[in-house]
Amino acid sequence: MHLPELHFIGKVHSDIHNTKDAPKFHAESDRTGTLEIYPQYQDGLKGIAVGQTIVVLCWFHQADRNALQVYPRGDKSKGLRGVFATRSPMRPNPIAISELKVLAVDGCRIEVSGLDILHGTPIVDIKNIPS
Amino acid sequence: MHLPELHFIGKVHSDIHNTKDAPKFHAESDRTGTLEIYPQYQDGLKGIAVGQTIVVLCWFHQADRNALQVYPRGDKSKGLRGVFATRSPMRPNPIAISELKVLAVDGCRIEVSGLDILHGTPIVDIKNIPS
Repeated sequence: MHLPELHFIGKVHSDIHNTKDAPKFHAESDRTGTLEIYPQYQDGLKGIAVGQTIVVLCWFHQADRNALQVYPRGDKSKGLRGVFATRSPMRPNPIAISELKVLAVDGCRIEVSGLDILHGTPIVDIKNIPS
Repeated sequence: MHLPELHFIGKVHSDIHNTKDAPKFHAESDRTGTLEIYPQYQDGLKGIAVGQTIVVLCWFHQADRNALQVYPRGDKSKGLRGVFATRSPMRPNPIAISELKVLAVDGCRIEVSGLDILHGTPIVDIKNIPS
């Protein structure tokens, strides 16, 4: 079967420049930053409103795609777990899910808070929270 | 930039055979089915336990990747919205997020409830719910 290629729809601008600086989960982050969406995808943003929470899927381009087991949150006391039983960025398809609060929308740029994502990380999707 | 290829880690077995049969959201579904994970990814399942809820990312291989605006849930009264402000399966990277309850784990097969996914849909990732 032909395997599909991802289309990057934008990238993250944040002050998180290496993985050691990154909060482990968005719920632990009060950082703000900007989602830059490429102009050809701007029509897809219609309806995103200030104050709402959006689900953002990013591609962790620096993550190891071959690891299948990890020590959760680096804690070796609990032993190895399968990556599919964790939130580790390491996994065959390193797609991260973040829930971010919209602070402002200006054309192709969405200012958000709750950011836990490295500067320059490609964005692959944005979704509404199910109502 | 080189665009990454997705690696399908498995596929869904369900009794949902066309999109008209599919519940709109997993929260509205009481259907059960099976996630078949390919043997080369089985080590990644270690730690997934009966009774827990898992986050499952699928690739909606039948979805239109070019649509940027849709009528949410087919309701034309509210006008067109950007796909990134909806949960529509149509979007540039048609990755769906479902939260499913684990009923049983048997080797490479995970029985789940809450299923809202077409039979044969490729699976791209499984994650733990953040604790």
